[in-house]
Amino acid sequence: MSELYAVRRGRLRDRCAAAGSAAALVSRPANVRYLAGGAPPGAVLLLGPDEDVLVCPRTPVADPADGRPDEQLRTTALPEPDGDTVVAAAGMAAAAGAESLAVEEHHLTVARHRALGSVAPRLRLGDLAGAVEQLRIVKDEEEIACLRIAAEITDQALGELLESILVGRTERHLALELERRLVDHGADGAAFPTSVATGPNSGLRRHRPSDRRVEEGDFLSVRLGANYRGYRCEIGRTFVIGTTPADWQIELYDVVFAAQRAGREALVPGAEYREVDRAARQVLAAAGHGEGLAPRTGHGVGLEMEEDPQLAPGTMGKLDACVPVTVEPGVHLPGRGGVRIDDTLVVRPEADGGPELLTITTKELLAL
Amino acid sequence: MSELYAVRRGRLRDRCAAAGSAAALVSRPANVRYLAGGAPPGAVLLLGPDEDVLVCPRTPVADPADGRPDEQLRTTALPEPDGDTVVAAAGMAAAAGAESLAVEEHHLTVARHRALGSVAPRLRLGDLAGAVEQLRIVKDEEEIACLRIAAEITDQALGELLESILVGRTERHLALELERRLVDHGADGAAFPTSVATGPNSGLRRHRPSDRRVEEGDFLSVRLGANYRGYRCEIGRTFVIGTTPADWQIELYDVVFAAQRAGREALVPGAEYREVDRAARQVLAAAGHGEGLAPRTGHGVGLEMEEDPQLAPGTMGKLDACVPVTVEPGVHLPGRGGVRIDDTLVVRPEADGGPELLTITTKELLAL
Repeated sequence: MSELYAVRRGRLRDRCAAAGSAAALVSRPANVRYLAGGAPPGAVLLLGPDEDVLVCPRTPVADPADGRPDEQLRTTALPEPDGDTVVAAAGMAAAAGAESLAVEEHHLTVARHRALGSVAPRLRLGDLAGAVEQLRIVKDEEEIACLRIAAEITDQALGELLESILVGRTERHLALELERRLVDHGADGAAFPTSVATGPNSGLRRHRPSDRRVEEGDFLSVRLGANYRGYRCEIGRTFVIGTTPADWQIELYDVVFAAQRAGREALVPGAEYREVDRAARQVLAAAGHGEGLAPRTGHGVGLEMEEDPQLAPGTMGKLDACVPVTVEPGVHLPGRGGVRIDDTLVVRPEADGGPELLTITTKELLAL
Repeated sequence: MSELYAVRRGRLRDRCAAAGSAAALVSRPANVRYLAGGAPPGAVLLLGPDEDVLVCPRTPVADPADGRPDEQLRTTALPEPDGDTVVAAAGMAAAAGAESLAVEEHHLTVARHRALGSVAPRLRLGDLAGAVEQLRIVKDEEEIACLRIAAEITDQALGELLESILVGRTERHLALELERRLVDHGADGAAFPTSVATGPNSGLRRHRPSDRRVEEGDFLSVRLGANYRGYRCEIGRTFVIGTTPADWQIELYDVVFAAQRAGREALVPGAEYREVDRAARQVLAAAGHGEGLAPRTGHGVGLEMEEDPQLAPGTMGKLDACVPVTVEPGVHLPGRGGVRIDDTLVVRPEADGGPELLTITTKELLAL
């Protein structure tokens, strides 16, 4: 396992060297974790010039969910209680004779960047940009195994909710119960705030649970996911409450279901990101729901919830095998409600059976 | 109510003008909310030169917990789905003829700052630094009323837990139950991740709940708080489980209790931040627990959990009336456990009865 992190760091070092930088400073938490195996909050990773060092705050918070740093990696803690790990790491790079240091300009604040410049004025600061995020897009089988377990936990939590009585309970309580069940089944926590939306709220992207109670005839849409060892998946489903669904509910559900299937079927290695988005979007548009759609149909998942790639009209790039993504189209009709259907899948070649569906809860329209 | 936000913005505008900047761009979420009354995620506030504008993303997420923007404030949403509100606001400032713009360099990333520079190359960019954070330290009575309600909710949630059976339940489940009770009693959510620590984990600063179960004879320490309309308080208590506490438990509890009382009693307008810290710290040191203490004894609370002031040895500054702070000393003995006692109080002059205790759950050592 430890070898894995050294390999990842080696890959990043090669990229830096090619860009003319002998050392790199990784500060974005998910990137630090990806390269170090685990890290307390506030830790940063200095790559080279001579060796790699994980620079931790003086009093790290103990948390098993943060993982354990790679044992091959040198780890150091700052002597001062409020020391800045970024500044300390830059000082170490300068002391080790580095002339240039690539930093994550999309994560570092202007104020920290300036502090870093003044502690090591001779260091030429470059931009690491999204180099680590790029490495993170294609997952190895150990990462996919974590996502698979996260999805199993998520399916279990959702399955149990469906067996309970829903009418009369509030969105907030259902959301809290789903989060408790995620933890019951072994999650390190929820991957993101669980969304439960009923009646006119249903189908809203990222609706935050309110005190509205579930009523007969409502659409109920839920969106949840487990965090397992740092890896996060997501599922979204829409149900109908009570008796038989109304005609408009069946029609709307069928359209979103068809759009989601089209998106899933477009997940082949080599497909452009925007093709996947278009596949789902055009089904919604053809049914007259082209306006007011979410800006994207899905996104990558992993150590963060909304990683690259972005499945959206304006995104350039092509899918690779072993990239986990969500496919999550939805339609919301103001005042009435709506439908969202959301899966996490891993892109696989057709020879391997096509996309691997991680979230397996049924997508039939259940009347609960 | 709306007048209030205009007054706050007026104060900030005066500060900017004094520093030679005709316009300011506020991007840190809590600062935006403080000045705008409420704001969707990703919104930024442009102050001047002619008028103030809240610049929102195209598809803001509806969430009552984010509050409603001040109706006197002009609000605009970006046309593009993935537009950058910071860049758009800078463009608006330049179009309105501003020559200089103060930005929050401690919040803006290097990459966004650069994007801002290229969209408005003639704009002279300055640093707003912590100007809004400084304004936020002293609270008005409406803010204190929100904190008081947050504290009442927190006391209720904790009180109910104390009436239930604890032995055999895991830290995780107790934490989830506390969070559910916070919401039951009207919180918009937990102010921060609830910490429940048992046995050898007790007394650890920010321990994250594990699968360890409560056992007879354990110390049990909890730390929780409600978020009410954006305002966050915190309470921390330590209990002993089952029979009579052991001698070492009583002794340790008495020391931390005395330290916490000393800290509370030091909360008078005009007291230096570090005096309050020293008052608590020296009680712990005199009892032989001076090593390995947390870097600070308390901190401000409000729209964020760990606001200024910092009650720590190295912090310069003096307390004012109407500043809410925590006083939260603790000692952890590795392998055995420890004690933390944590209150939220508002600094008040002696003539008004001295510090106002918001979190009123008893601090006797309860054996549960």
